[in-house]
Amino acid sequence: MKNCCRLNEISWDAFAAMDVMAKAPYLSQDGREYHVLVAQQFTRARLEALGTLATRIRRIAKEEDGMTFLRGLLNNHRAMLYFSQPSSRTFLSFCAACQILGMEIGEVRDTATSSEFKGESQEDSVRTFSSYFDLIIMRSQIGGLAERMAWLLSNTERPVPIINAGSGKDQHPTQALLDIYTLQRSFERRGSIDGKTIVFVGDLARGRTVRSLAWLLTNYRDMTLLFVAPKELQIGPDILAMLDAARVKYELMGDFRKAIPMGDAIYMTRIQDEWDSDAGESRRIDTSQYNFTVDHLRHLKPEAVIMHPFPRRQEIAVGVDDDPRAVYWRQMRNGMWVRTALIASIFGKDTLINDQKPWST
Amino acid sequence: MKNCCRLNEISWDAFAAMDVMAKAPYLSQDGREYHVLVAQQFTRARLEALGTLATRIRRIAKEEDGMTFLRGLLNNHRAMLYFSQPSSRTFLSFCAACQILGMEIGEVRDTATSSEFKGESQEDSVRTFSSYFDLIIMRSQIGGLAERMAWLLSNTERPVPIINAGSGKDQHPTQALLDIYTLQRSFERRGSIDGKTIVFVGDLARGRTVRSLAWLLTNYRDMTLLFVAPKELQIGPDILAMLDAARVKYELMGDFRKAIPMGDAIYMTRIQDEWDSDAGESRRIDTSQYNFTVDHLRHLKPEAVIMHPFPRRQEIAVGVDDDPRAVYWRQMRNGMWVRTALIASIFGKDTLINDQKPWST
Amino acid sequence: MKNCCRLNEISWDAFAAMDVMAKAPYLSQDGREYHVLVAQQFTRARLEALGTLATRIRRIAKEEDGMTFLRGLLNNHRAMLYFSQPSSRTFLSFCAACQILGMEIGEVRDTATSSEFKGESQEDSVRTFSSYFDLIIMRSQIGGLAERMAWLLSNTERPVPIINAGSGKDQHPTQALLDIYTLQRSFERRGSIDGKTIVFVGDLARGRTVRSLAWLLTNYRDMTLLFVAPKELQIGPDILAMLDAARVKYELMGDFRKAIPMGDAIYMTRIQDEWDSDAGESRRIDTSQYNFTVDHLRHLKPEAVIMHPFPRRQEIAVGVDDDPRAVYWRQMRNGMWVRTALIASIFGKDTLINDQKPWST
Repeated sequence: MKNCCRLNEISWDAFAAMDVMAKAPYLSQDGREYHVLVAQQFTRARLEALGTLATRIRRIAKEEDGMTFLRGLLNNHRAMLYFSQPSSRTFLSFCAACQILGMEIGEVRDTATSSEFKGESQEDSVRTFSSYFDLIIMRSQIGGLAERMAWLLSNTERPVPIINAGSGKDQHPTQALLDIYTLQRSFERRGSIDGKTIVFVGDLARGRTVRSLAWLLTNYRDMTLLFVAPKELQIGPDILAMLDAARVKYELMGDFRKAIPMGDAIYMTRIQDEWDSDAGESRRIDTSQYNFTVDHLRHLKPEAVIMHPFPRRQEIAVGVDDDPRAVYWRQMRNGMWVRTALIASIFGKDTLINDQKPWST
Repeated sequence: MKNCCRLNEISWDAFAAMDVMAKAPYLSQDGREYHVLVAQQFTRARLEALGTLATRIRRIAKEEDGMTFLRGLLNNHRAMLYFSQPSSRTFLSFCAACQILGMEIGEVRDTATSSEFKGESQEDSVRTFSSYFDLIIMRSQIGGLAERMAWLLSNTERPVPIINAGSGKDQHPTQALLDIYTLQRSFERRGSIDGKTIVFVGDLARGRTVRSLAWLLTNYRDMTLLFVAPKELQIGPDILAMLDAARVKYELMGDFRKAIPMGDAIYMTRIQDEWDSDAGESRRIDTSQYNFTVDHLRHLKPEAVIMHPFPRRQEIAVGVDDDPRAVYWRQMRNGMWVRTALIASIFGKDTLINDQKPWST
Repeated sequence: MKNCCRLNEISWDAFAAMDVMAKAPYLSQDGREYHVLVAQQFTRARLEALGTLATRIRRIAKEEDGMTFLRGLLNNHRAMLYFSQPSSRTFLSFCAACQILGMEIGEVRDTATSSEFKGESQEDSVRTFSSYFDLIIMRSQIGGLAERMAWLLSNTERPVPIINAGSGKDQHPTQALLDIYTLQRSFERRGSIDGKTIVFVGDLARGRTVRSLAWLLTNYRDMTLLFVAPKELQIGPDILAMLDAARVKYELMGDFRKAIPMGDAIYMTRIQDEWDSDAGESRRIDTSQYNFTVDHLRHLKPEAVIMHPFPRRQEIAVGVDDDPRAVYWRQMRNGMWVRTALIASIFGKDTLINDQKPWST
């Protein structure tokens, strides 16, 4: 049995029945993530280590010979990008991250995958990928599929790590990771994330990014979370119970304009109408007051930041883009860097990156 | 005229009219395959040379500097993967093989290729690819298309080799190659393929893999082939005539359970219902007794192997996967190695690989 | 603000309102193209510099160590190929060009891009690509989109160059570039393009290649352009006005056979029926006499060349392909070389290529 995590020590039924926090230790190896499946598996120490690594990679990449160094790190590895749920943004971000590290890529991006594989099971498809590639990055409409695959592959002769690039309504851990990295960078001159007020706006009921990020923020001290949404789209009671358990302050609000001056970060989200039933229920909700307009800028703290996981529709006026507090474009690029850091770390290249001269001085 | 095979010495009509065995000499150059079009072009000597090369590549690839050596072999070459008939498995396997050798890849995987090319002929499309790439790997629903293209390209100023990755109902030569390689590896401690009994099960009427493999097995001595299928899906008379001519022993059977203990290799196949007419004739055939179940394992010889070209549906129970005699996952990975060997050989890199120290010692 | 062109010195409205010739200076940097948007931005000096560079790259690429040198030039760069209008030929040509220079590639080739990006604006999509890649090569059904994107990106913190690989009915500047390069090569033993007669045949009303090439030919002296088409598909008055202004001789003809012996180059085109209305007006036009047949070859000058931007349908008989004057296959490969030259030039690698020994001697 090759190098892997501890998922081969437990049955699938036992693992599947576990609480998400209890799963975390099974996904790591030597203190680093092996499979990346859920936002909850990142501790504060790991969030900081990955953020530091991402910043280091970003700086190394500014130099030609730095780029060459990075490209040599995993140039004997190949990654499979298996995206049965379409997402060009996450796809391209991972694609770039792999390329920065010199990895070659194979891809299946067809939404008609079932027909393509002539009726084989998802398990067989993913195990096929593991025959040819050293890392599987997968996105799927099916909740829990990445977990199932991680367990399965860990119990074969040739385990390979799996990164969940979004599964069902539930998890998108690398999005949460890039959001945290963006907050780290945004607040680095103001201490840290501790003590800040984060305002979440929009479709909080269905956006998995908000759920994951709220969870990760429980790692920080003295946080205040404000959830601003029409009541039909407010954050779910499960998240609030989780925040209560972690003793994080929060408030549910309906009035966006009132919340703006309170935020150190305003986290805007899109109405996730792809999860609507045929009746199109979200179309009947008036969300117009939950858009960030140019006029709102003057109510925003001078050092606050505006974030958005993208794609956006009308939630943020294009005119806002030119304001230096609008960091959502930088946030997108942060995604590339932090995914690069994550992949490098999975393959144990973090030490090498941290020690590498001349950038280590 | 560049380096090429002898296909530019003959007219298309004369070549097309030839028996498949007569075609073989036209496809080679300096004793190696140039175009890879039909299973019949592989002699036993070539099967063994390619198997040995694949094993060597597999071992070299276990070391970091071995991988680096392999990636340097064809890193100035580019391959076109033109898959107008969908197949992610064969596609990804070739993709990985090219990447192992350092080749860059271009791809067209659209099934709506005809519209994409605005009504141009297949000949013009493929010749276009040859303008930009050094190797064309093509899969098509159209029988004989790869042959036609190979002839055409051999008669241009810029001939490039073509590998047939599956054409119509007829040929899929690299699948046959990986099957032979899997048999070679499976029997290497028991002498060789000679003298073994191979049991073919399932849809033998329409699966091109069985046809090609049966042909290649005529290269070996004292073989016994057992064809186990419902009578509507039994192997065709043309294959039996070919076996008769080659004096290979065979038997047609209806009872799978009786065949299992006789086999050194059990070659399972899927019902190829994509070739059904609209009436869906294969749905009316009871194939349930032609599935390999966990219970069957105790009837299987201790040293026998179970193979499957994949994708599978219900022909092999998932519970069988854990048995060490189930080699179909290894078979899949063998495909990657033997395709790597084949491509390296086409470009004359076999000698370099065989001589390379320290792995040559 | 990073290195870029002068597009950040002007408002979008002012730029959009400019004449195409007035736009040109805004697209360059240090005397080289930065964004490549319109055929009109190439001066004769630049056409010759790029042609010379392409020929040099072509020769360097004949040697193994030359290929290695080329692959090292941009191997720390990544290119995004964003083709929302399908075109495998142009796509693969750019793909190969990037790979020759060592660039990694990301791609979006889906025609259903709108759904894929969940309703985000084209501007946001392209700006997303610029977050992950160093060059964007885009093709779109929407006229002027590439221009808009070039302006937008030039006004961000992270400008990246854009190459227009075809937009709407209007521009396809790299096609014009490869046509000019093909004419340069075809006439290099006969002086230059100056003084030659170019015969354009087919659908001259709607083919953007003819429009762009006609424009570029005004850079040369003593040209004669013959436009041969059924009257419904004749060249537009805007092009004729442009030729008048540039004092280029031209003639409109209906009789193809009469034109053939007059041409130094015969530029054949396809009926662009994808621009037809539902009524399919071009199907009612008899275009049969505008096809180049084998019989026409004996009327063609001994040193003339036959070109076609491809794909072809019946406009050129396949039997013509074997005539040495049929250069359309070479023209296709020229596209790869001149695009390689263009990309190398955008990133300022032209000097390095021109100076590189041993090929510089």
